[in-house]
Amino acid sequence: MRTVIGVMGGAAVSETVMRHAHEVGRLIAEHGHVLLNGGRDAGVMAASARGASEAGGLVIGILPGDSAHGASPHLDVAIPTGMGDARNAINVLASDVVIALPGGAGTISEIALALKSGRRVITLDFPLGPEFGLFRASGSLTEAADPAEAIALVARLLSETGR
Amino acid sequence: MRTVIGVMGGAAVSETVMRHAHEVGRLIAEHGHVLLNGGRDAGVMAASARGASEAGGLVIGILPGDSAHGASPHLDVAIPTGMGDARNAINVLASDVVIALPGGAGTISEIALALKSGRRVITLDFPLGPEFGLFRASGSLTEAADPAEAIALVARLLSETGR
Amino acid sequence: MRTVIGVMGGAAVSETVMRHAHEVGRLIAEHGHVLLNGGRDAGVMAASARGASEAGGLVIGILPGDSAHGASPHLDVAIPTGMGDARNAINVLASDVVIALPGGAGTISEIALALKSGRRVITLDFPLGPEFGLFRASGSLTEAADPAEAIALVARLLSETGR
Amino acid sequence: MRTVIGVMGGAAVSETVMRHAHEVGRLIAEHGHVLLNGGRDAGVMAASARGASEAGGLVIGILPGDSAHGASPHLDVAIPTGMGDARNAINVLASDVVIALPGGAGTISEIALALKSGRRVITLDFPLGPEFGLFRASGSLTEAADPAEAIALVARLLSETGR
Repeated sequence: MRTVIGVMGGAAVSETVMRHAHEVGRLIAEHGHVLLNGGRDAGVMAASARGASEAGGLVIGILPGDSAHGASPHLDVAIPTGMGDARNAINVLASDVVIALPGGAGTISEIALALKSGRRVITLDFPLGPEFGLFRASGSLTEAADPAEAIALVARLLSETGR
Repeated sequence: MRTVIGVMGGAAVSETVMRHAHEVGRLIAEHGHVLLNGGRDAGVMAASARGASEAGGLVIGILPGDSAHGASPHLDVAIPTGMGDARNAINVLASDVVIALPGGAGTISEIALALKSGRRVITLDFPLGPEFGLFRASGSLTEAADPAEAIALVARLLSETGR
Repeated sequence: MRTVIGVMGGAAVSETVMRHAHEVGRLIAEHGHVLLNGGRDAGVMAASARGASEAGGLVIGILPGDSAHGASPHLDVAIPTGMGDARNAINVLASDVVIALPGGAGTISEIALALKSGRRVITLDFPLGPEFGLFRASGSLTEAADPAEAIALVARLLSETGR
Repeated sequence: MRTVIGVMGGAAVSETVMRHAHEVGRLIAEHGHVLLNGGRDAGVMAASARGASEAGGLVIGILPGDSAHGASPHLDVAIPTGMGDARNAINVLASDVVIALPGGAGTISEIALALKSGRRVITLDFPLGPEFGLFRASGSLTEAADPAEAIALVARLLSETGR
């Protein structure tokens, strides 16, 4: 079974974040991992899917709607769930490690749901508040300075969990 | 159709938070609203259910498991979902207004999912970080100083949304 | 905790089925049980909710959408799930016993999901095929001749399972 | 985006059904489609995954639990949902066409949910009752005599829907 890296982030983000999302996608593919995200053709989802796809990686999108309408064209496989935001719980359960870029409430919910389910989360450009303090202290939540460091952290976390 | 107030919060919280949760539950019932929470017999869920139940209110619990096992005895109706944390999305969609007390990642996910779905959130004793800044600025996320103020805010939000 | 009887059935059904759904709802309320259904203002959902509500019962609707839009006015509590048909799994998990009247694929899915989860199902006016044979043989699936018999079967099943 | 064929069926089935499931999996892969199923290491799920995997196809499993525990070793990508049987709704939404082999209540729920969502269903060795009559009449539900005919029907349905 292949290792799956989830990339979460907002539908409307800055140019820098778009560039970082694209690079994170590319690096995930270059390391031979599957990229999984929320699948929509917007923001971090679209940019990371494009990055992984251009590097020849496998890209899976877990969509909120009941069809592939609105999906990024860079997905290999679209998984419509028809569950709206409840699909956020699946996004993170299906990920061996989660990388979170800036986003709105949806992205925050994915970070929280990932930590709740024991998934490790690496944030990039996304400072979080005191309510996440315990997870930071335990090492479940780590901050990366740039895409390269995020991927280096993924490698370390995967080797720690034996994947 | 009756107005439903969701009360979210952790399974392991301080004495003060337990007291506040109990009082919030009582006040919700005294105002004639339905109390809805995550249904488990622990922490904020248990205390708020008991508070509402003792005041004669209707209490509904949306449970993560596939049976009522582990449910608070103060629920009138248990809704097992078998969906684990994905039920957090239901907890907040089913609430006209959400009151959030301190909790872990599950509670944070509920706050985020509520805001994502356009539900107003009132926090009590639970300081949140900068990632929630826009919601604070727009008035979707408000801080209450104590249970009485939380309920006063609920009344104001309900009248604003015409309920 | 109160006993919950789920009533499933189609959105477009015959006059006879509407009458039976209404009577089933009334009888559930008269026996002091909570009526739970799919919550929409159509067919068996609307008729059973009205029947229970007119008899003073508590009615809960588990809705497919993310708001109470389209809900029966006879619900006491609307639980929007935003999950589309996946909410069918919740409809049956939340029911101690399920009564199924005629319906389309949604109703068939609820009967199947109920049996999968170990819930007893009583059908009324709804003949099912050979693929349900084992459940009929084991007594998990029973046919009632009319609303009165359906409710008598509910009482027997509840006493068997100790509720 | 790649075409996804869902294969549904029971965890405990006859030798013949296991052989048919294996052959269906192989044929799906040989036609260049993605095989998607419930992901568990049992019955039709395991046999179809093995068939597709041995033929070099991509295999995705949508699991009921919150981890890949109990997954078929022939999956390329495991998608744990933590949603129990509610994941059946995703199994079919994520499939362009569904092939259903014999199974219990879970499989029946998947057939019903697929039809409810407008997905075409092809049954193999699994006779269904009168409650599915309208779907048979409309052509949404078709019976195949053997794996080869099932795949021929898939090809025809895909060309009809423009995929």
